Amino acid sequence: MQDFIYNIPTKIIFGPERLALLPEEIKAHGNRVLLLYGKNSIKTTGLYDKVVGQLKNHSIVFEELSGVKPNPSIESVRAGIRMMYEHKLDFILAVGGGSVIDCAKAIAAGYHYDGDAWDLVVGKATIQKAVPIGTILTLAATGSEMNGSSVISNEATIEKIGFGSPLLRPVFTFEDPTLTYTVSTYQTAAGSVDIFAHLLENYFSSHDDEGISDRMIEAMMLNVIHYAPIAVATPDNYDARANLMWTSTLALNGLTGFGRSGGDWASHAIEHEVSAYYDITHGAGLAILFPYVLESYLAKDIVDKLPLTKFTQLGRNVFHLEADDDAILAQLTIDALRDFFRSLNMPLQLNEEKVDDTHFRAMADHPVNTTGTLGCYQPLTADDIYTIYKKAL
Amino acid sequence: MQDFIYNIPTKIIFGPERLALLPEEIKAHGNRVLLLYGKNSIKTTGLYDKVVGQLKNHSIVFEELSGVKPNPSIESVRAGIRMMYEHKLDFILAVGGGSVIDCAKAIAAGYHYDGDAWDLVVGKATIQKAVPIGTILTLAATGSEMNGSSVISNEATIEKIGFGSPLLRPVFTFEDPTLTYTVSTYQTAAGSVDIFAHLLENYFSSHDDEGISDRMIEAMMLNVIHYAPIAVATPDNYDARANLMWTSTLALNGLTGFGRSGGDWASHAIEHEVSAYYDITHGAGLAILFPYVLESYLAKDIVDKLPLTKFTQLGRNVFHLEADDDAILAQLTIDALRDFFRSLNMPLQLNEEKVDDTHFRAMADHPVNTTGTLGCYQPLTADDIYTIYKKAL
Repeated sequence: MQDFIYNIPTKIIFGPERLALLPEEIKAHGNRVLLLYGKNSIKTTGLYDKVVGQLKNHSIVFEELSGVKPNPSIESVRAGIRMMYEHKLDFILAVGGGSVIDCAKAIAAGYHYDGDAWDLVVGKATIQKAVPIGTILTLAATGSEMNGSSVISNEATIEKIGFGSPLLRPVFTFEDPTLTYTVSTYQTAAGSVDIFAHLLENYFSSHDDEGISDRMIEAMMLNVIHYAPIAVATPDNYDARANLMWTSTLALNGLTGFGRSGGDWASHAIEHEVSAYYDITHGAGLAILFPYVLESYLAKDIVDKLPLTKFTQLGRNVFHLEADDDAILAQLTIDALRDFFRSLNMPLQLNEEKVDDTHFRAMADHPVNTTGTLGCYQPLTADDIYTIYKKAL
Repeated sequence: MQDFIYNIPTKIIFGPERLALLPEEIKAHGNRVLLLYGKNSIKTTGLYDKVVGQLKNHSIVFEELSGVKPNPSIESVRAGIRMMYEHKLDFILAVGGGSVIDCAKAIAAGYHYDGDAWDLVVGKATIQKAVPIGTILTLAATGSEMNGSSVISNEATIEKIGFGSPLLRPVFTFEDPTLTYTVSTYQTAAGSVDIFAHLLENYFSSHDDEGISDRMIEAMMLNVIHYAPIAVATPDNYDARANLMWTSTLALNGLTGFGRSGGDWASHAIEHEVSAYYDITHGAGLAILFPYVLESYLAKDIVDKLPLTKFTQLGRNVFHLEADDDAILAQLTIDALRDFFRSLNMPLQLNEEKVDDTHFRAMADHPVNTTGTLGCYQPLTADDIYTIYKKAL
């Protein structure tokens, strides 16, 4: 087991109709709020009125910035920072899914940085200080609600890049599973794939059994496999929505990474390239690409005569598979993963999402242009990535 | 899934030889330290010198209180509070296992209470404020290092009572698995049973499948079943010690309880009665009593025609058992639990620990004298508890 420091101060207030606690949670950290959200869906569901009602009733000053997009852009970040200064705001309340929360984090960091916030995203500057953030989660997917990570897109440079700092962990998050009842079947499925993909990224960090960390990841995977189909079939099933929401948070708050040497994250980087060029939902992209990445790993493992422990324990412990031969069990495991994604009506090939091969070369070269390879389980070269895109087409 | 608030600010510094971080962690909360420990074992292992060296090198004033016993007494608590006032101390550093940490918590709470600290233990007064506590853990067992719970004994009244408050969570805990290399085979086994028992207490909180909470408990159980025998057989196996240590913390920091309606905790209360009268190690007492409590539950479930979900999923998911009949599977599961405890050389009957039936009536009556029954899975009456003691004799 690797050394680690566990320090997760984010407070989670879980359950329906708990927004009466919002004002005191905000007031513990700030007085003048940037209210950040995406589409108008929070207005149609009534959530907007409830939040604004709480703020007004407790005389909390706020300014609104709406229209944050699914792949939040650096333009929204810059707009948010300008508003923070203009209105002398000292707290950010992000109401939405991972995109809105990610945008809030970039604003929080950029506010205290003299240059352009994009410098922080690409790592040209480090985050020294951040405005406190609180969130009201409306989608079970990214885990952004309890971690310090963020992914921001730059349409001008066609880049989608992840960055982070412990300083960006939200100070509180309200998780009301009933807020996800109105999430579409497609987005529910894509969110579930995203959760599962976060678990896979940490799981495939090494070829060894990682003890308690692996066991907890498997527990969360079993939970997603059980509840995602229920949530897709019956959107207002509370237990399914609640289990997915809490699992989305636990899957990426750090817990599954403690004691192991980071995660793989190659599949995420490979998917981010697709999202940067095409209008594709992140989870759908992962459903397509992750099985192909694993098949690439399996082929390399077999060539390198490495133990297939991660594949076989995933097959046995999560998909309840068995086979005499480890290589066969490993392939059956990848097949079962693909079957699970398909059972949620997720795409399995890029062409299903109208992605063509026009940019494959650039999409394969870009994620390795500074590091040479991608991921840690079986480092992938640009050619490996190109082959993965081709197979996934 | 039940509503909950997750708020676990304890920082965990995990790994060998990380005490260089100790002074800054203390200084974030206090300047004048009560150094609390138990036997002289921390002197023979060299830990004492390392801790004191760090304190002296960074000019941190400290006073020592040693001799905290395995079932920490209210006398030690009172002595600690007196020292805090006498030397104007403002921080408690507990070096040891759960007993030392539990004693620190009672001192921390009692310091800010005008009356006798025992009032806080028995619930005659509530905890309003507490001195900050840091811990250096030397035993994987109680989970006290990351929660707000404490168990204190009163030899005068022959009582051993648990109490707690979120205010009592340690602000930091150092977990160095190598510090547990010198823990005896017996105490390693007893500590592992204690961890497993905490998981069982939460698991048997209801007759339903509790989703992610149950899955995580099962993951931790699988981990204890795998690593406890390794730690018993090879005391300096780092992975085994590390997995047990981190699992002891996760098993009772609140994580396994979120989303469910508390735990059962009848077995713990029943064991506390035994510990109050006899010199028995807590984990050994749990190894004896827990299977008998479960057999009592199973018999009641069958009479009440209740689903045996908790037994059957424990059998299938943790002990990999199968049977056509749920009642048979349930009994096989309890048998497997007993076999696991016995495989660690734990006792399975009270007479193995020189406990006789002299006080059974008082030990059965006391834990229900205010509430009428004990536990929530299948509330136990005094007569039920008496029968359990008799069978376990």
